[in-house]
Amino acid sequence: MQLLPIDLIGAIPVASNAVSSDTARMATGAPSNPLFDDRDVDFLLYEVLSAERLLALPYFADHDRETFAHAIEAARRLARDVLYPTYRLLDAEPPQLVDGKILVHKKLRELYAQMVGLGIAAAPRPVEVGGQQLPLTIFAFVTAYLMAGNAAAYGYLGLTHGAAHLIEAFGSEELRRDYMARMYEGEWTGTMALTEPQAGSSLSDVQTSATPTGDADGHYLIRGNKIFISAGDHDLTDNVVHMTLARIAGAPAGIKGVSLFCVPKRRRTAGGALVDNDVAVAGMIHKIGWRGLPSLALSYGERGECHGFLVGEANKGISYMFQMMNEARLMVGLNGVATASAAYHDSLAYARMRPQGRPLAAKDPSTPQVAIIEHADVRRMLLRQKAIVEGGLALLLRASLYADLAHHSTDAAERARAQLLLDLLTPIAKSFPAERGFESNALAVQIHGGYGYSSEYTAESWLRDQKLNSIHEGTTGIQAMDLLGRRAVAGGGAALAALGEEVRLTCARASAAGVPPEWVTALTEATQLVGALTMELAQRGLAGDPSAMLAHATDYLELFSTAVVAWQWVELAAAAHERRARGHADAGFIEAKLAAAQYWIATELPRLAHLAHLCRSGESSYVALDPAAF
Amino acid sequence: MQLLPIDLIGAIPVASNAVSSDTARMATGAPSNPLFDDRDVDFLLYEVLSAERLLALPYFADHDRETFAHAIEAARRLARDVLYPTYRLLDAEPPQLVDGKILVHKKLRELYAQMVGLGIAAAPRPVEVGGQQLPLTIFAFVTAYLMAGNAAAYGYLGLTHGAAHLIEAFGSEELRRDYMARMYEGEWTGTMALTEPQAGSSLSDVQTSATPTGDADGHYLIRGNKIFISAGDHDLTDNVVHMTLARIAGAPAGIKGVSLFCVPKRRRTAGGALVDNDVAVAGMIHKIGWRGLPSLALSYGERGECHGFLVGEANKGISYMFQMMNEARLMVGLNGVATASAAYHDSLAYARMRPQGRPLAAKDPSTPQVAIIEHADVRRMLLRQKAIVEGGLALLLRASLYADLAHHSTDAAERARAQLLLDLLTPIAKSFPAERGFESNALAVQIHGGYGYSSEYTAESWLRDQKLNSIHEGTTGIQAMDLLGRRAVAGGGAALAALGEEVRLTCARASAAGVPPEWVTALTEATQLVGALTMELAQRGLAGDPSAMLAHATDYLELFSTAVVAWQWVELAAAAHERRARGHADAGFIEAKLAAAQYWIATELPRLAHLAHLCRSGESSYVALDPAAF
Repeated sequence: MQLLPIDLIGAIPVASNAVSSDTARMATGAPSNPLFDDRDVDFLLYEVLSAERLLALPYFADHDRETFAHAIEAARRLARDVLYPTYRLLDAEPPQLVDGKILVHKKLRELYAQMVGLGIAAAPRPVEVGGQQLPLTIFAFVTAYLMAGNAAAYGYLGLTHGAAHLIEAFGSEELRRDYMARMYEGEWTGTMALTEPQAGSSLSDVQTSATPTGDADGHYLIRGNKIFISAGDHDLTDNVVHMTLARIAGAPAGIKGVSLFCVPKRRRTAGGALVDNDVAVAGMIHKIGWRGLPSLALSYGERGECHGFLVGEANKGISYMFQMMNEARLMVGLNGVATASAAYHDSLAYARMRPQGRPLAAKDPSTPQVAIIEHADVRRMLLRQKAIVEGGLALLLRASLYADLAHHSTDAAERARAQLLLDLLTPIAKSFPAERGFESNALAVQIHGGYGYSSEYTAESWLRDQKLNSIHEGTTGIQAMDLLGRRAVAGGGAALAALGEEVRLTCARASAAGVPPEWVTALTEATQLVGALTMELAQRGLAGDPSAMLAHATDYLELFSTAVVAWQWVELAAAAHERRARGHADAGFIEAKLAAAQYWIATELPRLAHLAHLCRSGESSYVALDPAAF
Repeated sequence: MQLLPIDLIGAIPVASNAVSSDTARMATGAPSNPLFDDRDVDFLLYEVLSAERLLALPYFADHDRETFAHAIEAARRLARDVLYPTYRLLDAEPPQLVDGKILVHKKLRELYAQMVGLGIAAAPRPVEVGGQQLPLTIFAFVTAYLMAGNAAAYGYLGLTHGAAHLIEAFGSEELRRDYMARMYEGEWTGTMALTEPQAGSSLSDVQTSATPTGDADGHYLIRGNKIFISAGDHDLTDNVVHMTLARIAGAPAGIKGVSLFCVPKRRRTAGGALVDNDVAVAGMIHKIGWRGLPSLALSYGERGECHGFLVGEANKGISYMFQMMNEARLMVGLNGVATASAAYHDSLAYARMRPQGRPLAAKDPSTPQVAIIEHADVRRMLLRQKAIVEGGLALLLRASLYADLAHHSTDAAERARAQLLLDLLTPIAKSFPAERGFESNALAVQIHGGYGYSSEYTAESWLRDQKLNSIHEGTTGIQAMDLLGRRAVAGGGAALAALGEEVRLTCARASAAGVPPEWVTALTEATQLVGALTMELAQRGLAGDPSAMLAHATDYLELFSTAVVAWQWVELAAAAHERRARGHADAGFIEAKLAAAQYWIATELPRLAHLAHLCRSGESSYVALDPAAF
């Protein structure tokens, strides 16, 4: 809940010369915010998803529900009590580029140390590399709380986890020993260094070069420029390890000639010393959000002394990097949910506290004003946020569960099936929270009225933070092409068939639990529509016209996402009915869940027919328009 | 078009210690931007709206198409060559509150003087009060260019115009002489001082008090607090005149006890001197956009010496203020269009210039990359922006034309009919550009990719600017209630009937011009749907259940707005066909107009059925949800 700094200023007459321009900022300290609803944790894990089944798998055998609860509770405390209260401070005072070095806020040093203390850089990884073998399903809640508290601060460790995981999966023993170990300990951090000025979304155009040296340690000399490298430099740790895409001299053009290199800021010499590795900060981009995490232009090898170490085989860099990118995309989706959740809870508290206006039927101006949550349109904005946030959270947790099963199930068929489902859902899990989450964040601003438009309140900063999620790790347009062009048609329809089975299970459960049959029917029809539409569009691709197949890929993504989130809401509704049947005391929790489910089914699902028509008809307005004509 | 500061940094290796943190800001100078498409001016005025008919009215008799063109061209030059190039500078360095006074950027003084030089504070007003009797239809283009160039800078004069107009319409001879005249000259500025900390959207809760003194000049003593007062103080001019809502001691509770006062920052004494009038700056709100225009908390009468002068009759303040608010709402709508237009043209230029990726059918990575406008999804984002911007512009110009006819037609029936149409369309003209314009501005950011997420580019600042428009001058939720609860049912359906006639004229024109008959049919059906739905919902209100009538007012507003903008697009398409039939040379202009019309008809209009269903069914999810349950 927010304090009301402006209200106080307005309500208390003050001498005009006693007020500095910073008065209004006085109260930007530490209003409380739950970030997520605690009640959702057990509900989602054990009533919706039956996450306890993971405990039967050998990889997770040392865990139990208590260790899960402990991990989540530790992150929640840190997020609420430490990260969130300093979030605005770090937003207002971002890292500075001074003499070629990035200097972070001194407060960030404390936060970083406390996050490292949770062991989160390696939590899901095996014990032998320093991890805790925590299920991603649990880790999702851990990271969601931390990202809701301060996405930028968590970013340093999230990136490090992904970078170290690449070395673990594909790197040599030497790289694991020299770099990965320190990264999983949080002693050093890592980056993804893909993007170049001329190659943003188009990785086949990477030009950074790697020249073999014949040196005993096998290093290459790296030269080139990268841009938008998050956490590409800082003074939090002694070293930064850049997982860098580069092209070995003579490699084929395009994606098939791109290799992955480990390029540390400081490299380890044969003698074990750390020396500067000729990676320079060439500039800092002034991002509009995630402001605690610097986004940099890097210049490799200006002195010809930048050593890079090949990870895995030459020319396979893109396929390796996709492991990291798939993980990163889920992380982006979770961030979208987290950012929208913090804003939702903030606007909910504001709506309950802010008096303004009266009910339609009670016009007597001498009666007290009511809290704005009493107005139907404010509840509309709140329930829409809730539907997006909690539907998105359920989706991300489900994707995490599939990831756990894909990696650690003892049954090969279950592993394969879970991987299919994970791959299929990843573009949706990445883009839905980004797109609808931005809309949700805008509603949180709107609920605050004029106060929401000021930097004295936090709503506006989450709106800024959220916008990045539709851009980085593949824009929404790219997710759409990836979904329709690759993933939905993968395995000759096997992925869609597996999804259909999952939805049928949900429908059966929902029917048994007493969910209204029309919701179940609507979901069934939506799923059938997705299947039929995909086949129809795929035929166009098979017939040699990929443009006709993909012209409305973004509409297809929206259609598919809306259906997938409806699936989550029917599942959530089923679990809510089951909870009610067990006589659970919290009737309000159940009522609100069912209202949000109803909202999504009644308000969003009916949009599918129109979206499908746009895809099928190939609605030609922008498709056919000559670029010169605009 | 934007320069590419980051690209340059990335592409040119620089010594790491030679780069300051501000390097990336170097190039934020003055990229060019047309703000609006020049080709739209004559097209809209004379081919779509037949604005030349205004020249037949006595009030505009001294004008001709040349004076119109001159006024627009002068504003366009100032906007492109002076306002826009300094827009980011003023955004980055907003006014400061120092020792109780607001100090604006020194550059703003030059801009203000140049805007005053255009005579825009009084341009539409009669010659006898210093105006030019310029039609609002022409003035709309004048202000649109200025607002697209720098909304905050124009804000000072836009507010002054509205405030002075209130004195002109309702004030005494003395107030006109002492205050209005200076304001219309731009020598002093004006404000709307409505909002109080406890009364934002709820004007019936205004508490600022006015105590009669019995003094010969009839002044009252004002005491109270206002908040969110734009341009409430500054050092651009010697005086600021606050049109202030206050409650005279003993007045009835609620709206019926609110009066309008003219409360200058410095009042004129009987001797003609200007003395401080005890209006103090109590604090400055740090807005996230419109940053050149300070938003202030004001404290009246801390020393008991704040004189206010009653405007018009006691207790009629709200009805007077509504004149100003209706004008201001159109201004907000126009601002939404202007902000979205600047961003649209910026992203269009970027999409034409930025190479990235290759066509779907051409995967050879050794071929050059293509400009991103070659990708269908980028054209989707551009055409959606165009449909919103140009559809919104057509609507605002049409509303302005109705305003001109309502005030200056020589035919009483035409005046009344135009006023009905203007009143009906005002909530839509205010909220559509705000809501869809925000979406449009977000697409402009998205097209810029990672660059769009940085403050080195302008897209993000327009996104910030735009968000205010759904909040100030009545939130979107309030516009929705106003539309459905009052305006659509006004005169027992007379307003809707007049709208129906207008749409029929458009349909007839479109059919004659060769617009596809299915577009005409779709528009006709949409208009019939609006009429039928309005009657149905009005019945619920008449039956004593305003909640049931208004529960989905926001869906109703979206439905109505979508239909009204479709009407504009059918009219624009008709004019485009006529232009083609005349053998106009610019085929691209016509093609793009027809593509945008097609987009709106095919993509947006089909959503009406679902929105109508939500309204009719009273979809109960958020309506019935207990506020405590969330």
